[in-house]
Amino acid sequence: MKSPHGKLGLWMIGAAGNVATTVAVGLSAIRQRLATTEGLVTERAPGSSLPLRPLNKIVLGGHEISSRSVMETAAQLADRSGLFGPTILKKSTGDLKRFEENIRPGKALRCGMAIEQLASRGSSRRAVTAERFIKLVIDDLRAFQHTHRLDRVVVINVASTEPVFATAGTPKTWAALQKKLAQKSSPLPSSSLYAIAAIQAGMPYVNFTPSLGADLPAIRELAATNGVPIMGSDGKTGETLLKTVLAPMFRERALQIDSWVGHNVLGNGDGLILNDAENKASKIGTKNNVVASIVGGAPDSRTSIEYVESLHDWKTAWDMVRFRGFLNTPMTLQFTWQGCDSILAAPLVIDLARLADYHAAHVGGGVMTHLASFFKSPMDVTEHAFPAQIAMLHDYVCRYAPQD
Amino acid sequence: MKSPHGKLGLWMIGAAGNVATTVAVGLSAIRQRLATTEGLVTERAPGSSLPLRPLNKIVLGGHEISSRSVMETAAQLADRSGLFGPTILKKSTGDLKRFEENIRPGKALRCGMAIEQLASRGSSRRAVTAERFIKLVIDDLRAFQHTHRLDRVVVINVASTEPVFATAGTPKTWAALQKKLAQKSSPLPSSSLYAIAAIQAGMPYVNFTPSLGADLPAIRELAATNGVPIMGSDGKTGETLLKTVLAPMFRERALQIDSWVGHNVLGNGDGLILNDAENKASKIGTKNNVVASIVGGAPDSRTSIEYVESLHDWKTAWDMVRFRGFLNTPMTLQFTWQGCDSILAAPLVIDLARLADYHAAHVGGGVMTHLASFFKSPMDVTEHAFPAQIAMLHDYVCRYAPQD
Amino acid sequence: MKSPHGKLGLWMIGAAGNVATTVAVGLSAIRQRLATTEGLVTERAPGSSLPLRPLNKIVLGGHEISSRSVMETAAQLADRSGLFGPTILKKSTGDLKRFEENIRPGKALRCGMAIEQLASRGSSRRAVTAERFIKLVIDDLRAFQHTHRLDRVVVINVASTEPVFATAGTPKTWAALQKKLAQKSSPLPSSSLYAIAAIQAGMPYVNFTPSLGADLPAIRELAATNGVPIMGSDGKTGETLLKTVLAPMFRERALQIDSWVGHNVLGNGDGLILNDAENKASKIGTKNNVVASIVGGAPDSRTSIEYVESLHDWKTAWDMVRFRGFLNTPMTLQFTWQGCDSILAAPLVIDLARLADYHAAHVGGGVMTHLASFFKSPMDVTEHAFPAQIAMLHDYVCRYAPQD
Amino acid sequence: MKSPHGKLGLWMIGAAGNVATTVAVGLSAIRQRLATTEGLVTERAPGSSLPLRPLNKIVLGGHEISSRSVMETAAQLADRSGLFGPTILKKSTGDLKRFEENIRPGKALRCGMAIEQLASRGSSRRAVTAERFIKLVIDDLRAFQHTHRLDRVVVINVASTEPVFATAGTPKTWAALQKKLAQKSSPLPSSSLYAIAAIQAGMPYVNFTPSLGADLPAIRELAATNGVPIMGSDGKTGETLLKTVLAPMFRERALQIDSWVGHNVLGNGDGLILNDAENKASKIGTKNNVVASIVGGAPDSRTSIEYVESLHDWKTAWDMVRFRGFLNTPMTLQFTWQGCDSILAAPLVIDLARLADYHAAHVGGGVMTHLASFFKSPMDVTEHAFPAQIAMLHDYVCRYAPQD
Repeated sequence: MKSPHGKLGLWMIGAAGNVATTVAVGLSAIRQRLATTEGLVTERAPGSSLPLRPLNKIVLGGHEISSRSVMETAAQLADRSGLFGPTILKKSTGDLKRFEENIRPGKALRCGMAIEQLASRGSSRRAVTAERFIKLVIDDLRAFQHTHRLDRVVVINVASTEPVFATAGTPKTWAALQKKLAQKSSPLPSSSLYAIAAIQAGMPYVNFTPSLGADLPAIRELAATNGVPIMGSDGKTGETLLKTVLAPMFRERALQIDSWVGHNVLGNGDGLILNDAENKASKIGTKNNVVASIVGGAPDSRTSIEYVESLHDWKTAWDMVRFRGFLNTPMTLQFTWQGCDSILAAPLVIDLARLADYHAAHVGGGVMTHLASFFKSPMDVTEHAFPAQIAMLHDYVCRYAPQD
Repeated sequence: MKSPHGKLGLWMIGAAGNVATTVAVGLSAIRQRLATTEGLVTERAPGSSLPLRPLNKIVLGGHEISSRSVMETAAQLADRSGLFGPTILKKSTGDLKRFEENIRPGKALRCGMAIEQLASRGSSRRAVTAERFIKLVIDDLRAFQHTHRLDRVVVINVASTEPVFATAGTPKTWAALQKKLAQKSSPLPSSSLYAIAAIQAGMPYVNFTPSLGADLPAIRELAATNGVPIMGSDGKTGETLLKTVLAPMFRERALQIDSWVGHNVLGNGDGLILNDAENKASKIGTKNNVVASIVGGAPDSRTSIEYVESLHDWKTAWDMVRFRGFLNTPMTLQFTWQGCDSILAAPLVIDLARLADYHAAHVGGGVMTHLASFFKSPMDVTEHAFPAQIAMLHDYVCRYAPQD
Repeated sequence: MKSPHGKLGLWMIGAAGNVATTVAVGLSAIRQRLATTEGLVTERAPGSSLPLRPLNKIVLGGHEISSRSVMETAAQLADRSGLFGPTILKKSTGDLKRFEENIRPGKALRCGMAIEQLASRGSSRRAVTAERFIKLVIDDLRAFQHTHRLDRVVVINVASTEPVFATAGTPKTWAALQKKLAQKSSPLPSSSLYAIAAIQAGMPYVNFTPSLGADLPAIRELAATNGVPIMGSDGKTGETLLKTVLAPMFRERALQIDSWVGHNVLGNGDGLILNDAENKASKIGTKNNVVASIVGGAPDSRTSIEYVESLHDWKTAWDMVRFRGFLNTPMTLQFTWQGCDSILAAPLVIDLARLADYHAAHVGGGVMTHLASFFKSPMDVTEHAFPAQIAMLHDYVCRYAPQD
Repeated sequence: MKSPHGKLGLWMIGAAGNVATTVAVGLSAIRQRLATTEGLVTERAPGSSLPLRPLNKIVLGGHEISSRSVMETAAQLADRSGLFGPTILKKSTGDLKRFEENIRPGKALRCGMAIEQLASRGSSRRAVTAERFIKLVIDDLRAFQHTHRLDRVVVINVASTEPVFATAGTPKTWAALQKKLAQKSSPLPSSSLYAIAAIQAGMPYVNFTPSLGADLPAIRELAATNGVPIMGSDGKTGETLLKTVLAPMFRERALQIDSWVGHNVLGNGDGLILNDAENKASKIGTKNNVVASIVGGAPDSRTSIEYVESLHDWKTAWDMVRFRGFLNTPMTLQFTWQGCDSILAAPLVIDLARLADYHAAHVGGGVMTHLASFFKSPMDVTEHAFPAQIAMLHDYVCRYAPQD
């Protein structure tokens, strides 16, 4: 079985943000052989055993609420964070402009003041109901697919983190929820409306952020009914990745974790949004649960985030683990992770688009639990240990890779 | 199937050293409920599914070359390294004395000057051939088994690291090697002679150090012929454990490791021996290979060891990993591990004794590859990734655990 | 000139707390030659040039609000934090009991709920005015001096940190403030009432905490009028000490600090109080200002504190400094400080008592600015750089040391 | 008093190396206002109180043994270590070319094989006596001064570290040493011959490396006789700077240092030379002595250096200090310094040139002890504590700054 010949659309919510821009620069640089494929999980075993969509068949588009362009974001990442050398920045300009032409104004509903203040792109979408907004998004998605003659479009949310959304009062069925969408005030945050739009358009939806997205019974029902694959949430790129790699070691060696303290310092736009207390809460939530879920018991797990502008897109995480071994002796492990958020996230977004595309083509709809290793809070998966999650991906490939 | 009723002998080479002493104090404290079982892999899943020998059925003995007693070592560990509180130290004195009664003078042959200078216990074994030494060791082992009416004895090497032994000229068959044992000068270092003695006595032999031990074709042949289980070498307790836990993460995320620098600082007797250049070489060797074997390619891996007396039994390892991700962007992970060597090693020695006992009783002889996760250089196993090694242990338990 | 023959009383507010208990255990151990004088600034140059009160002439007493005893605190510090070996703990029991006999019930007024909930010692002092409370404290202080025939008593506040106290409405003169003390509700927190009592009794007052203490115009006026030396506030023992040592280096090398992030993790009673947001605010305040005051400009300085019970009295501080050098190149310094709060603070409390005693005897009243190096927020001193503060102490000794 | 109007020549031994190249790029960027003056000590108090030579009056020249050009070095630093942005690199090309025209072939005599293998520039200087080599160097220096009409030339050694040179048999007087210079085989390494040449030409000589340079009684005698200022050796830029900043803190707080372990990892040409055991020895020597000299006693101080190519010009130093405080309690400080060697060294080279120029003009010859803060092994200065060394610079400025 060969890789598909047609084109795949990758539609990103938050299209002019750091992650989406890095996706665009990276794809452009790889196609021009200005960079190699480090960071792309699907370019190595086991993912590479699947006949996935070639990298040069991916067309980019997306929604964006702010008025900045991807070229501006790319220049800023190069200038402030030193991400792209001058050659790559210059030679990817053509591709970035083509991406920019595929960007449509988005809308921030119930996303918290920190995000809503950014909204400045376009103006026609100011006062709309959720139902009307979904309709407009579907129109954008279909126009994108039609214009570029795309075999399929995958929608991935890489927008800023929304505040925690209390779902207690939200209807449990799609029928009941659908009625509320016509209300004057939206019953859901934007991330969920985009998810509904994608699913209604028959397009896989992946949530790379801790926002609500498709993680509601009513929306899952819709995805199941429509046979559309969905997955999320919150890309596992740095500190939490390390937690889920290290915690199983303590468990397997019967070393009891007393406390795990993590402090994250970062200076990009995402950090600025997280500086806002209501948006920070959803992030901390997903970061704090994983250790206890892996090792059991009640380790004292504490995660904090500090916004420091001068760090730009570089995040430093310092973690200290106090654990007890034989004869209850306390010992310590500390680590410092100095990574670049966009550089870590962007290849995973491409991986997810290719894997969701493959799943839609060869397996069907529903929650893509085999992609758990990509997420801090994987939908329908209680296993947080990274090695076990990787084993799930291997099993999937074994099962669904073409037999020659 | 129930746990066996009889007693198991655990015979340690290096019986008055830090690790053996900690084994003795720990078993005593656990039996008296002064400590819980943290650090013991066999007290949790999956090992706990096997009907292993109960902890209170283990009788300790061993060989020792120096004249210090286990009570002296225990007091020193308590005083200098703060390992055992006053209550535990006091209440384990009776058990330590019983252990001390089972210690016989050992012998250092071809172990490097640093070790040979320690030899001061007993005097009758000064000038002997290898053949004669093996005979004496077998006598000691059989006397131990007989005196305490033990179902089985497992021999574990926890003595100081010998210098690298060049095996090029050593005979490949047991028949040829055996002839050389009668020579005036021993053709092998002590660790291998103890291994031969154990195997000839039909007792499982495990090498917890980087010394040569049973890792020679001729000795493996002997073990296979006699149906005796063997395994080694070099217990994986700290920095290397972390390397084999973290390196798979970089591989699975397609992050390319440019360099991995490790610096180890420690102050116990083992550190003093390692300060001697010839003994250090074997240790550095086993520490340096694992990263490349896991991630492939040729990462620049460098490990250094520094002896700092004031640290006593506490080892600090600082590691820095430089890796490259998407768009070839370099990023960094550093960790600092502050662990206590004896505390980390001792429970694994107990685990290995119980698992070797089980293997001898229920499976048979040969190399116990399912115990690879315990070693820096597992015999006959090329897989260094800790999660994969742990999977081997799970598979073993699935296969050999009794079906009710 | 010789050291004085008479006895010095050291009266500690928070007498059964970790710091005061460590002061008592330490003095006892040093007198019995069970410990050497590490950590005592006055036992080395330049302080040792002054004929200070000998360590064996110091008598301890204090106020305490909780019902726990110093023996309980000492046992807990030994057990949980591993501070005192069994020999020291046992042999200091007599001295600790004598100290306990000199402890009187204190009172928490306007100290925040976190502190007030601790109050359980005694009961007679529940409902009193500030004026009456000051009177009772003076009685306690005078009784202590009389009973033990002390040449002088120095009062040092080592109690838990009170919440930030808004001083805007507080009268600026002693005359005006004094009138308010008779009100039903205290116009000041306890730390200030103790300060007033000490000053009215003619006893030097030193505030080792970030609480308000004597740092009000009206109380300074009282100290000046009465000729009583005062100083504070907030002992500089760990992270802030390092900040004031390192920041001058960046300044002298013209390296511009962009950001300085500090994260403190601790698990003692002080940490528990600081976990309470209102009490934490005063601590963070004094920790954050020092860098900018030393290097100028507006470095982005952020300090956070996290309470982790399993760390007990051990504090770990992780700091990351991002700075720019030649050609505006960004570089990084990180440090991890693993210190024991009480062990670091206790000898400085003894130093301060001896130096305040000397000042009262040989120089007079007022703010002891030469002791700036001991404090995070030194009264009347804008210089935060540690080397410059140490120079102030040297100058003082040069000026006031006896000329033979 | 105004800054001098004439021009100053800065002649660097190792002219196409990383430090000299960074000096050239930095001066060019600052003159064009593409960078600010971070890292330049003489641009801030107290140095800025002296009427030093303006930065735009400095003309660069030097000796170099390898055939690479400064443009090549600059491009490599930009490409591999990310030091200069594309704008700065492009706009400084003209200045770099002018510098390149002033570079003459150097010569490596007794510098160790690692250095001598680099020698490829020019060929006429292969087989010469020390006397002849000195003559050729003086000719080069005078031609430089004459061509550019320079008021003064300062010679600074920034070449690779030579092996430790055993000075035991070297004549103690200039008269005796001079005779040996005519021998066929040089009695001294190149660094010392350059020093003699500079001094004989009446030009200040500063040794920024740990090589021997002017640090011989006979050469000091020559400098004193000729009234030429000299200073060295080994620029204090990173780990050692921190040691001399932190060690005084431990001393002033009576905290006893048990051990200080430092591990340095770097990947530039200097690291490669240091990877050669004989050259590494001189570096380790100067790095190890400072702690004991500051705190007294015999702390266990250990420094190691590891060459890791992928780090290029970025050096990471990890240091761990174990110290004991009150009640002899052990505590720990660790730091990680991530700095760029050339970026840290280059501005100090410029500072030293300006300060040596000032000293020659206004004070006279001899050892410039007031510059001790710039060096790991300051000539004629036993004080290693950085704050005390900075006080020496302040005193100098107070004494020699012009009084208006």
